[in-house]
Amino acid sequence: MVPVLAIDAIVRRALDEDLASGDLTTEACIDPEASAVARAVARSPIVVCGGPVLAHVFAAIDPGVRVEANVADGTHVQAETTLLTLRGSARSILMGERVALNFVQRLSGTATLARAFVDAVPPQASTRISDTRKTTPGLRVLERYAVRVGGAKNHRDNLGAAILIKDNHIAACGGVAQAILRARAHAPHTSKIECEVDSLAQLDLALGAGVDIVLLDNMDTETIREAVRRTRRKAVTEASGGITLERVPELALAGVDVISVGALTHSAPAADIGFDFE
Amino acid sequence: MVPVLAIDAIVRRALDEDLASGDLTTEACIDPEASAVARAVARSPIVVCGGPVLAHVFAAIDPGVRVEANVADGTHVQAETTLLTLRGSARSILMGERVALNFVQRLSGTATLARAFVDAVPPQASTRISDTRKTTPGLRVLERYAVRVGGAKNHRDNLGAAILIKDNHIAACGGVAQAILRARAHAPHTSKIECEVDSLAQLDLALGAGVDIVLLDNMDTETIREAVRRTRRKAVTEASGGITLERVPELALAGVDVISVGALTHSAPAADIGFDFE
Amino acid sequence: MVPVLAIDAIVRRALDEDLASGDLTTEACIDPEASAVARAVARSPIVVCGGPVLAHVFAAIDPGVRVEANVADGTHVQAETTLLTLRGSARSILMGERVALNFVQRLSGTATLARAFVDAVPPQASTRISDTRKTTPGLRVLERYAVRVGGAKNHRDNLGAAILIKDNHIAACGGVAQAILRARAHAPHTSKIECEVDSLAQLDLALGAGVDIVLLDNMDTETIREAVRRTRRKAVTEASGGITLERVPELALAGVDVISVGALTHSAPAADIGFDFE
Amino acid sequence: MVPVLAIDAIVRRALDEDLASGDLTTEACIDPEASAVARAVARSPIVVCGGPVLAHVFAAIDPGVRVEANVADGTHVQAETTLLTLRGSARSILMGERVALNFVQRLSGTATLARAFVDAVPPQASTRISDTRKTTPGLRVLERYAVRVGGAKNHRDNLGAAILIKDNHIAACGGVAQAILRARAHAPHTSKIECEVDSLAQLDLALGAGVDIVLLDNMDTETIREAVRRTRRKAVTEASGGITLERVPELALAGVDVISVGALTHSAPAADIGFDFE
Amino acid sequence: MVPVLAIDAIVRRALDEDLASGDLTTEACIDPEASAVARAVARSPIVVCGGPVLAHVFAAIDPGVRVEANVADGTHVQAETTLLTLRGSARSILMGERVALNFVQRLSGTATLARAFVDAVPPQASTRISDTRKTTPGLRVLERYAVRVGGAKNHRDNLGAAILIKDNHIAACGGVAQAILRARAHAPHTSKIECEVDSLAQLDLALGAGVDIVLLDNMDTETIREAVRRTRRKAVTEASGGITLERVPELALAGVDVISVGALTHSAPAADIGFDFE
Amino acid sequence: MVPVLAIDAIVRRALDEDLASGDLTTEACIDPEASAVARAVARSPIVVCGGPVLAHVFAAIDPGVRVEANVADGTHVQAETTLLTLRGSARSILMGERVALNFVQRLSGTATLARAFVDAVPPQASTRISDTRKTTPGLRVLERYAVRVGGAKNHRDNLGAAILIKDNHIAACGGVAQAILRARAHAPHTSKIECEVDSLAQLDLALGAGVDIVLLDNMDTETIREAVRRTRRKAVTEASGGITLERVPELALAGVDVISVGALTHSAPAADIGFDFE
Repeated sequence: MVPVLAIDAIVRRALDEDLASGDLTTEACIDPEASAVARAVARSPIVVCGGPVLAHVFAAIDPGVRVEANVADGTHVQAETTLLTLRGSARSILMGERVALNFVQRLSGTATLARAFVDAVPPQASTRISDTRKTTPGLRVLERYAVRVGGAKNHRDNLGAAILIKDNHIAACGGVAQAILRARAHAPHTSKIECEVDSLAQLDLALGAGVDIVLLDNMDTETIREAVRRTRRKAVTEASGGITLERVPELALAGVDVISVGALTHSAPAADIGFDFE
Repeated sequence: MVPVLAIDAIVRRALDEDLASGDLTTEACIDPEASAVARAVARSPIVVCGGPVLAHVFAAIDPGVRVEANVADGTHVQAETTLLTLRGSARSILMGERVALNFVQRLSGTATLARAFVDAVPPQASTRISDTRKTTPGLRVLERYAVRVGGAKNHRDNLGAAILIKDNHIAACGGVAQAILRARAHAPHTSKIECEVDSLAQLDLALGAGVDIVLLDNMDTETIREAVRRTRRKAVTEASGGITLERVPELALAGVDVISVGALTHSAPAADIGFDFE
Repeated sequence: MVPVLAIDAIVRRALDEDLASGDLTTEACIDPEASAVARAVARSPIVVCGGPVLAHVFAAIDPGVRVEANVADGTHVQAETTLLTLRGSARSILMGERVALNFVQRLSGTATLARAFVDAVPPQASTRISDTRKTTPGLRVLERYAVRVGGAKNHRDNLGAAILIKDNHIAACGGVAQAILRARAHAPHTSKIECEVDSLAQLDLALGAGVDIVLLDNMDTETIREAVRRTRRKAVTEASGGITLERVPELALAGVDVISVGALTHSAPAADIGFDFE
Repeated sequence: MVPVLAIDAIVRRALDEDLASGDLTTEACIDPEASAVARAVARSPIVVCGGPVLAHVFAAIDPGVRVEANVADGTHVQAETTLLTLRGSARSILMGERVALNFVQRLSGTATLARAFVDAVPPQASTRISDTRKTTPGLRVLERYAVRVGGAKNHRDNLGAAILIKDNHIAACGGVAQAILRARAHAPHTSKIECEVDSLAQLDLALGAGVDIVLLDNMDTETIREAVRRTRRKAVTEASGGITLERVPELALAGVDVISVGALTHSAPAADIGFDFE
Repeated sequence: MVPVLAIDAIVRRALDEDLASGDLTTEACIDPEASAVARAVARSPIVVCGGPVLAHVFAAIDPGVRVEANVADGTHVQAETTLLTLRGSARSILMGERVALNFVQRLSGTATLARAFVDAVPPQASTRISDTRKTTPGLRVLERYAVRVGGAKNHRDNLGAAILIKDNHIAACGGVAQAILRARAHAPHTSKIECEVDSLAQLDLALGAGVDIVLLDNMDTETIREAVRRTRRKAVTEASGGITLERVPELALAGVDVISVGALTHSAPAADIGFDFE
Repeated sequence: MVPVLAIDAIVRRALDEDLASGDLTTEACIDPEASAVARAVARSPIVVCGGPVLAHVFAAIDPGVRVEANVADGTHVQAETTLLTLRGSARSILMGERVALNFVQRLSGTATLARAFVDAVPPQASTRISDTRKTTPGLRVLERYAVRVGGAKNHRDNLGAAILIKDNHIAACGGVAQAILRARAHAPHTSKIECEVDSLAQLDLALGAGVDIVLLDNMDTETIREAVRRTRRKAVTEASGGITLERVPELALAGVDVISVGALTHSAPAADIGFDFE
């Protein structure tokens, strides 16, 4: 669920890029009175995401275009499944086709990749897959939605939503404990304090200072297992750094609470979706 | 070269996403007077892109941060190469780090992929690699720049810049020739007319109607070779649809003028770049 | 046909100029429940343009105002013809009257002047009248529409849509042919290359380099006739520079393909249109 | 004097129209290191207006371009006078040339026309020439400045700045006096109340109700003379409606305080100004 | 009556502050299909203001929420009065509750304070209570509306709507009369000229120069009485500076035309209003 | 520390309200070359806040105005203390005076009130004073800064930054524990979960479900003391609802961790600050 105001601003910018000067081809070739029916169809198996965004694209161009969602966001569909059906002015549908697909392909790509990571967690583990702030500039709110649609969870939304102490903060404060104390004194009481740790020694310092979350940065699985053992009951553990799909099961079985994956938003390939016209 | 006004609008939106409420951690942990030196470093071999965007990110946060480009956009660098060096307020550098990297990783990813496609064209061919309109919503002007930085070329910028007649336009006009005639009568005399053709028969119709560019859509290499043979001297030939890196050499040797590749902008993985602090 | 998003942004700015602080007079003098019927009436013979923009002005103020177009954009009407009829809240109609008229008078002025130039082309000629980029800052998309409504055609939309090589570009490149080659190597394959030529010698160089369009700058009719003779079949010819209505017939009969006229958008007097209330 | 924030917003929109996708020609043909000197030169006698706007255009593109005003806004110059001199990157100057000229030609056109009306007032009269709200949508603040630069004065800025009671307001209120009373009760005590009158009878009613300004709408000169005679000392008189340059002397000599002229902003032809490169 | 475009821009910014990243709690806890009925209820006696703004908040979030105004803006209500009733999606109502209340509490606070000042004017006086330009940045148009809803009147809207000469202007011009003459020569004939005077001597100078309004700055009541005596019939008198509710009766009885009160907009406490859910 | 981009957007809107049409009085009365020195002076004892915002106002109008902060934000000053000194163009200083004061008076008002609440906490208590989301629409980021400048702390920034479960959420979920479980399953692992409780019974349920913060809503001091006793070590306690300055000591001594006060931002009277010109 993304607030409609946020979708609106993003969609207007995208249409402004592609359609600000009109569509020469469609204006020349398509009768203003012609109507059409088009279907957005998956060309390969995907987790669908972006139906409401596509609907908003066409609402912004022409409120007369009716958009029906044949499957809900979050559905895992097979190739050749019809995702959405559009009925209305042929001009309007052709003018919005590319922008609409650019959104839906990208968001479905992220949702599909998120689902793959979630599905890689063994059933006996309760590990959560999370995104990061490595999102596409301008599209964060939509990509976070796509992550949730894929079954994963969100990390902090921005630099003002929670504390995440990294190595430079620690160095500037003169140590892990000092950094955590300064953060607690400054931050809203509603913000959790997370601290990146590179070693088990740092982990102990962070736990001793009452940290809420420890970010286990680029640790091997054995070290993570030990970190989880030392931490449990005192803080949330998060593994991060160079996470691949292949490594998820062993990390999850090591007992880590959260695995955060930048690739969900910075490197998901676009899902293959096209428009078929009747 | 992207107009600074365009960069500015995109950078402001990105900073608004991440920094609108300030940076809780940095404000708590870093002294306002502290200064730092940081380097953006490639973690793997890449084609660099986005230096001016990174510089603009920090200029928007704090004009006191000095950004030096150690290598120019378009350079192919090895892992561990320093790309840019920042000197200034530690707070300002930490506050902009993630947003700056989100831009540079993404743009370098596209430039690197573009270079790979360009390098796949055999030396004896003069085929041009081109992007498409399958760009990230809101980032088109930057991604088109990244494509050029990688050595490839741009397709039409938007729906108002050139004519591209697709199957639905042809159907609505009653045929290839009719569509081309309508387009020529309507479009600015400065706009080229491109027509998508699915068969050699359609190709002949388009050439007969004086088309400027033919888009050879999803054709096998043999058909493309024949299309090029029929076309040469009369129009520009462009191959499109499901182009992989592996297929570029044979398509280029088939003589096609342009190969357009949506993946350059919709599916390039982020380049691996990080900040190292002194 | 102008995308509604483009109209919306322009209309909002115009209303913001005039109505941001409300309408003191109307709020004081007109009952909130009062309704009115008003007609936009031509005070002299004009080509009508701007009906959809006027409708958008009132939709932005009060969706309850119904706007009926009595004649379509592009119609040549006599004095005292009713162009549009408005029915709804008297307050809303009075608040939007001036802004709406400012648009319709200006766009109809451009459409009327464009029609005059088009009508000046003798029937035996196929010369096209075109606008230029000498448009009113902020209103380009609407003025280009008005030009088309008047029966003329558009030139390139902006600096990124096509190549137009002028004398300074030629000088910087070291000659006409060099400039054209650089342009062709750089520009999208979808962009035509136009080159301004001041003499027949330059024309020959441009044609030799395979230019798509030649801009015959400030040439006398005899030279243009010769330029057309030398060019035909190889490029589009465009006459530009100090074009008056009186000179159109002889230029057209000289065989030039396009006559571009800056005055269509930079010096068209406003059409005389007023509101009559029932 | 126009607030720089207002200029900035207008200039950005204009550049966005023309330069959002870059300048294909200049990027292809002009070396990034090349510098140039260009002069904005009047091609015919004009009153200059828009120097600060031109300077802002180039500042927005490239702060490195230095702009020197050779003559101040408001100067009446002869043909071939250099108005402004630009020194800096050849690319930057070429990219901004058209947008800059679109502003300066338009504003100088308005200032030149305003000066002609002001000069038409005989020396023995103290009549003021005023603009109206018939301005170009989006450019009101600049056009009002051009009117002042030309020596004329401004009317109310917008619907919230002063009261202007027109025939529909009078009809809705049941009479001139009632409308004036309602306006006085409602409006800020800082706003003057103007009332349009079509006859001497209406004039008497308005004066009786203590109006501040009477708008003498479309009256012949004799009636205006009588209206001035009846009014003087009690209100400001303003003649409006179909004012031509030829009619100004007789209206001024009839003693009217203000002559308001919509054509200053809605129908001033662009001044002829061009760029000469060294 | 505030133009809907103005409300829309302000409401979007407010929602952007609070809801740009969605509502974590509501999304987690409330079923998307759940509906609710909520009432905005006064917790103490107030003058109601902001119903249309509240309605716009919910329209921007979800057009499906129906908002019914139980009492009109401007009504003086007792504690526990239902002001507005909302029916619709529980999610949408919860997401907009805080932003909507922030508007209505603030505007009702201003309207309530304005009413108190108006009610403090004795019946035998005709003194008008006016606001000032000491408004909340970004909310001027709404706060001026709240002032009117409370029964007071507005001062000039902004620096371009009327002339207000203060001590620094007088000093720069070399005297009261000179400042007024320069203002009259420069300002639109539709703008009144107000001059701040600190003494009766300055008052006489201002009246002698034909000022329209005199601002009696920080004078004691006796001086104001004398100023009114000297002024009447020649200008409007306005008392300003440190006005308290207690002082209104004696100032009004001293005969001053206008009392302007900055506190109406800069220091009105929020009215106590809450949402009750059925 | 507020990001300069956030200040910039807010300042531009404020200047747009007041200065969009220029400053008639200053343009008429002040010579463009005149310079001035002005001091912002406290008229009563206050905690200063807003120096950087005032500096930004003048930077946006005229970068030539130099602004010196005589005392830093957060300083408690006596009446007649000079806060900031401005030197530069007299026109520029007069044009920005009102808008600058509107910001500084309001922010200093909030900082002053925040300091009063902070000072009311007895030395032996470690209770934190916090703001709420009851901020002025459009000014949240500045008001949260003013709260911190006054020595208090911030609550969650917006609906997406942390979880706050209220009575309607509890009712919809079927109980306190169920609501907390749903929130924990949905929210980012970086977001704390706060739950409003109306009774000690609800408190026990919330603690049992592992809540991070309990909001003790409108409880008397005795109940709060008991709530603190039951809670300590398991969650943060926050008292809210009708908090007055007088009640702070007893609440703090009851041991509550946080007292949140809406009045800091919704009802702080403007601080009395004026400009003195040399």
